Amino acid sequence: MSFSEQELRDYAAFAEGLADAARIETLPRFRDGVSVSNKAGASFDPVTDADREGERVQREMIAKTYPEHGIIGEEFGASNPERSWRWVLDPVDGTRAFVCGIASWATLIALEYDQKPVLSVIDQPFTDERWIATGGKTIFRRGGALTACTTSGVTDISTARISTSDPRPLAYFNDQEAAAFARVAEHGRLARFSLDAYAYALLALGEFDLVIEAGLQHHDYAALIPVVEGAGGVITNWRGEPVGSDDRNETLAAATPELHAAAMDVLGG
Amino acid sequence: MSFSEQELRDYAAFAEGLADAARIETLPRFRDGVSVSNKAGASFDPVTDADREGERVQREMIAKTYPEHGIIGEEFGASNPERSWRWVLDPVDGTRAFVCGIASWATLIALEYDQKPVLSVIDQPFTDERWIATGGKTIFRRGGALTACTTSGVTDISTARISTSDPRPLAYFNDQEAAAFARVAEHGRLARFSLDAYAYALLALGEFDLVIEAGLQHHDYAALIPVVEGAGGVITNWRGEPVGSDDRNETLAAATPELHAAAMDVLGG
Repeated sequence: MSFSEQELRDYAAFAEGLADAARIETLPRFRDGVSVSNKAGASFDPVTDADREGERVQREMIAKTYPEHGIIGEEFGASNPERSWRWVLDPVDGTRAFVCGIASWATLIALEYDQKPVLSVIDQPFTDERWIATGGKTIFRRGGALTACTTSGVTDISTARISTSDPRPLAYFNDQEAAAFARVAEHGRLARFSLDAYAYALLALGEFDLVIEAGLQHHDYAALIPVVEGAGGVITNWRGEPVGSDDRNETLAAATPELHAAAMDVLGG
Repeated sequence: MSFSEQELRDYAAFAEGLADAARIETLPRFRDGVSVSNKAGASFDPVTDADREGERVQREMIAKTYPEHGIIGEEFGASNPERSWRWVLDPVDGTRAFVCGIASWATLIALEYDQKPVLSVIDQPFTDERWIATGGKTIFRRGGALTACTTSGVTDISTARISTSDPRPLAYFNDQEAAAFARVAEHGRLARFSLDAYAYALLALGEFDLVIEAGLQHHDYAALIPVVEGAGGVITNWRGEPVGSDDRNETLAAATPELHAAAMDVLGG
């Protein structure tokens, strides 16, 4: 790739600045009891002022510092998405968690070069947890302490702790996908739900072993890839191809290649 | 009842001391990656050193300060449960969350008088969140700041944010209960899962509107009752009777009496 390590370090520092800026917009609105609106009419798709204002300030910062970069954002769409460098933004991933007062929502920031994510940040302001992934490493920061992230090393599916945002064929999964997930969950040790991107961040900390989803969007999955890979995990679609190469934007994140292969087997039926 | 307000205040301070003592045992073991054991053999029922050591130290404190009180604990069973005053202890409710690194596990402490809970504490050490319920009020404390808890005031089921720990007929619900929950979820605005007691604590903060479960145990539900009621919510079984009066230990917690009645209607079919 045609960029230096120094360039990447600068972008990583800038990405943390974007996360800091989002915190100012998101955190005061969390649990305030009044910030929910509904952009989709009858069907439920919450979006908060936090999401909109967070992305607005982030886009202003990028336009000022890197006007030649493209942007893809959840709230305000794409600006110059054909550029080599492209930021992918979602100030509040997990809006349903946000509106229920659960601190598993996160700010997602990814920087892509020629359509591949090369660095990302996952930030949880209420718990003060931040994952920063760049140069093939993922760092976890909380309260000033830094830790290098490593996945759990679990290879046996019968001991796997598994997550998906919703196991029902209602929100993300279609019927077939829900059945495939249920097969994996049956093989594993336990399943926990409703965590969105935060589940992948916990996988990077060695706390989950498998995260399996479908129906995500670009701004949902871009930041997950460097964080999972930088901790030694594997993340692909359900057939081992890059995330985003199928119509359903399937994700299969695993602590180890062995566990990834085993889960792919069970997902396949 | 034959006890004074002062007595209740003393017990509440002591209950907070029990929560503090549990923190010392639980928090250092959270996300340490090695503390999980399995007490149930093949089926999954994790219990951590945190749970055992937390309860051990709490029982010692009670035996020393209130030797005439009974104790019911998750890990070490019942001591003198026939006494008028009885502590109900669960140092780590949400052990599955605990072993997945999710900060929705909680320490539950209830004090019962003649079998009715008169005060309780729900404590989340990682996020430093504590709910203290006594004398018909629920207080939320975080980082030194105190807030009086009030439920959301939602009365219309179509706007209700709903939670249960697992919607599948696998862990807590039987088939019929899972179908009844699914009916309520279909009427509501959104559902989030896997939160255990923490969901009731969020309901007390006005963040959830309905929490619906079955298959709980005494140490799972005792602490929920003062916290929900002290915030203005309603908590009963699925037929409006006191929690614990049916074989399945059903819970139906609602922000308002109107919403409680509406949910009971839908649960009934």
